[in-house]
Amino acid sequence: MSDFRLDPRLERDTLVLGDLALCRVLMMNDARYPWLILVPRRPDLTELIDLIPADQESLFREIVEVSAALRAVHNPDKLNIGALGNIVRQLHVHIVGRFASDPAWPGPVWGHSPAHPYPAHMAGIARDRLIAALDPYGLRDGTT
Amino acid sequence: MSDFRLDPRLERDTLVLGDLALCRVLMMNDARYPWLILVPRRPDLTELIDLIPADQESLFREIVEVSAALRAVHNPDKLNIGALGNIVRQLHVHIVGRFASDPAWPGPVWGHSPAHPYPAHMAGIARDRLIAALDPYGLRDGTT
Repeated sequence: MSDFRLDPRLERDTLVLGDLALCRVLMMNDARYPWLILVPRRPDLTELIDLIPADQESLFREIVEVSAALRAVHNPDKLNIGALGNIVRQLHVHIVGRFASDPAWPGPVWGHSPAHPYPAHMAGIARDRLIAALDPYGLRDGTT
Repeated sequence: MSDFRLDPRLERDTLVLGDLALCRVLMMNDARYPWLILVPRRPDLTELIDLIPADQESLFREIVEVSAALRAVHNPDKLNIGALGNIVRQLHVHIVGRFASDPAWPGPVWGHSPAHPYPAHMAGIARDRLIAALDPYGLRDGTT
């Protein structure tokens, strides 16, 4: 069993918000959607149902917490939650705020089109608002 | 508050497997994928985070149960789990067995292409195997 290490594609495509009890919380670097990703900090995991039951409970609780924080900040028309992993096998759960005016609506965001990264001066603002909304759930700096 | 009633598009596009404690369990009538859908039997619900906490716990447990049953029957290369609801607003959760050889791979099945309904002589077989696999989780006839 190896230590947890974030998949390099997730690392490249996202900004880190911090860690909850189980998961690293990432923000997809795509300015078109408020899009968070939860990655359980457990090595060698692909399927949600292969987490031990206590970790499944933590993951579900964190899905609810992150959904609530995203909704509080962005008030989307719809939340989309998905665990696919057909390309990046490391277990990760997407939580995306969707708007009837977004480019992929009403289809899924996954596989729709390449990301539009945040301009450097905007990424920090988007990130900081979500970090503040996750503070009540115990988000902490995930860099250590 | 009205009683639970299945969305007519879900009713049209699926076959009923039965009811678990919280959810109606449906099989998408698309012979290309083993594809189950969980619908909490609660009226007027769109977002998972708007379920009361006890129902959230039931839903998560049933997601794990249905995922395990689907994997036991079909042994897919990957499970895809998704709650979108951009078109059909009634809260429902997809659990799809994906194969590297399926037509949508590695993209999502949602929005990929119109369903290929089961031939009448095959739907019953597909349905019965899944019903048997869900029996240990208390699946019961959902028509009453």
